[in-house]
Amino acid sequence: MRDPERIERVRRALEEAQLDALVCALPLHVLLLSGYWPVVGLSLAIATREGRIVLLVPEDEQELVTLGWADEVHTFRPASLSELRSLADVVRQQWQHLAGHLGLAHARLGFELGPVSEPASYVAVNLYGSSLEHILRSGAPLSQLSQADEMLATLAASKTRVEIDRIRHACRLAATAFESGFAHIKPGLVEAEAASLFRRPLSANGSNRGASRADGFVFCMSGENSALASGAYARSRNRSIRKGDLVLVHCNSYVDGYWTDITRTYCAGEMDQKKTEIYDAVMHARVAALSAIKPGVEARQVDQAARNVLKARGYEKEFKHSTGHGVGFAAISPNARPQIHPKSHARLLAGMIFNVEPAVYIDNYGGVRHCDMVAVTDSGYELLTPFHNDTEKLVFS
Amino acid sequence: MRDPERIERVRRALEEAQLDALVCALPLHVLLLSGYWPVVGLSLAIATREGRIVLLVPEDEQELVTLGWADEVHTFRPASLSELRSLADVVRQQWQHLAGHLGLAHARLGFELGPVSEPASYVAVNLYGSSLEHILRSGAPLSQLSQADEMLATLAASKTRVEIDRIRHACRLAATAFESGFAHIKPGLVEAEAASLFRRPLSANGSNRGASRADGFVFCMSGENSALASGAYARSRNRSIRKGDLVLVHCNSYVDGYWTDITRTYCAGEMDQKKTEIYDAVMHARVAALSAIKPGVEARQVDQAARNVLKARGYEKEFKHSTGHGVGFAAISPNARPQIHPKSHARLLAGMIFNVEPAVYIDNYGGVRHCDMVAVTDSGYELLTPFHNDTEKLVFS
Repeated sequence: MRDPERIERVRRALEEAQLDALVCALPLHVLLLSGYWPVVGLSLAIATREGRIVLLVPEDEQELVTLGWADEVHTFRPASLSELRSLADVVRQQWQHLAGHLGLAHARLGFELGPVSEPASYVAVNLYGSSLEHILRSGAPLSQLSQADEMLATLAASKTRVEIDRIRHACRLAATAFESGFAHIKPGLVEAEAASLFRRPLSANGSNRGASRADGFVFCMSGENSALASGAYARSRNRSIRKGDLVLVHCNSYVDGYWTDITRTYCAGEMDQKKTEIYDAVMHARVAALSAIKPGVEARQVDQAARNVLKARGYEKEFKHSTGHGVGFAAISPNARPQIHPKSHARLLAGMIFNVEPAVYIDNYGGVRHCDMVAVTDSGYELLTPFHNDTEKLVFS
Repeated sequence: MRDPERIERVRRALEEAQLDALVCALPLHVLLLSGYWPVVGLSLAIATREGRIVLLVPEDEQELVTLGWADEVHTFRPASLSELRSLADVVRQQWQHLAGHLGLAHARLGFELGPVSEPASYVAVNLYGSSLEHILRSGAPLSQLSQADEMLATLAASKTRVEIDRIRHACRLAATAFESGFAHIKPGLVEAEAASLFRRPLSANGSNRGASRADGFVFCMSGENSALASGAYARSRNRSIRKGDLVLVHCNSYVDGYWTDITRTYCAGEMDQKKTEIYDAVMHARVAALSAIKPGVEARQVDQAARNVLKARGYEKEFKHSTGHGVGFAAISPNARPQIHPKSHARLLAGMIFNVEPAVYIDNYGGVRHCDMVAVTDSGYELLTPFHNDTEKLVFS
């Protein structure tokens, strides 16, 4: 299945950067360039300035390549019973051959230098790490390497129509998981059990028929634990959900390489005045941020819209992170573009997908975060997560 | 909690390699050097030739550091609301400061070049990739960098008493998961449902109380699907388990950074003659391989012991991979030492931990793999997975 829009954008970016080709190994970049989402992390994707997409793929993953649009697929065996060779040697030899075959022996090559946040979908991933640069260099010693991280981040930020459609699909499936989890959540459940209720329908073998590979990470943080959800590292614990608790449920799910980043905070039983005030502040910040979204606006204006509401309600310090970040190829990376951050002057473009996550975290009390995903349209935004957005509907008992 | 044996081994390795320090960022290497297992992949661990262990850790993960033995912990904020700085810039500055502070500005530094197979335990991981080398170089331009991958692989291969104990613990917890899964498996279940039965007890919030972070990946492949388990990339599908099926259940679980790699193949209902012959061949290959294990033996001798049995039974081509590989810091990497491979002349050492996974995969019919974990002892081996090892006990109905 070809994505001509993506192929053309990559070609144009190479032309503008005066590069002859782009070579990537991280699964999120291979997906971006070729539509094939590697599992074990051994594959290389090469995009040339002529718009040609070439893959180097381990035999075991050959069947997965058909979901993408590569013009040429070369396979290799990373391991063999008849000899013990290092993976770097095997791939160097393959790359040397390909560089010759593709006329890239004397070329200007862009590659991924890092750092990058790579979402994890399998038990382990092969990382070329610094060896990628060495492999590319030694296989094509007359070529010139330059870091293409900015180009890749920019390419990944603006989604094509095909990609938006896939992310929309991923969000719809996440919605069914939230709905199913919410139908079963009740006081007395341990956080980890609650998380697994929300997670179950995300799997390719749950309700997600039609997806080739789908699953997700979910954590649930309740009561005072929910105040800890602002950290980069969050998790469910063994705490039992009690009546009166705030119950923050966060989900990063994926469908065939496209990720979601969604949070809803539920309330166990009726809201008292303090909770009502917090929810009200977060929901108003949400509406303010959403209303600010359209092409041409600076990212910081969206952040400011949410932040101003929370500040006016006395929650300036309790809103501890930026209002959002790019989602789709990345899951939780605050560095994914656009960065909806107080200092980002980057302008929003139609096709960008990011999350909007206003929040209030009060230490030793609890936190409310409401994290949606949106796509920038020609005139505003499309809400990709149109569910559980009314405060009254976030209450369970 | 200090591991003086590990600290001394790292110190000695640096001395032998004439390096002043080792700098690593991949979570498995940070764990190896410091006992702290990073979540998000932002941390650096520095081990000096004097035996000093220094960590650079994002604030959010500070509490996790206490499980390790670092002498010094420096924290940093990867992101801030008051400025937009690239992660590479933030870490370069921190490293520059540390290199000066530790007397490493004119030093010989070992670092992880890659490729490395990194087990995944969180939704996403930050990867420095090629930027690690650039960060280290620009923060300490007068230092000399050399790749320390061999050293790291060798250090990771031989476990200390503390590490063996932790992996033993991880295997015991995996055993409870296999026992619980087996008690509930029955014909009619979809593979993915069966896998989740085995997976549930692995979580830190399942039966694994006492572990700080624990979970695991499990796949189940039944009937003709089980023949596909030889690939690097395997998964549960929507197939329902039927009477007469081979049901291969594979588990990679972790407890606080230490991984397991275990497979059992169950039989749904009584075995016919063909299945009896396959099981018998695999189990005899298993015993032959185990019996060959002791310090001083070449890794290929263990492989040969298993392979010869399977060859004699007519299954030479059906045993498609090597007999095993190092496990503990890695999960599924065939390159982790020792490589129990037909061509490996590496000698086994006491403290090495690896899997022993004789198997027969018959296309369009099914596969039987029996994968144990063992630790090499002074005189032989310790079986770390003493459960479900009798063919008769692998039958369910």
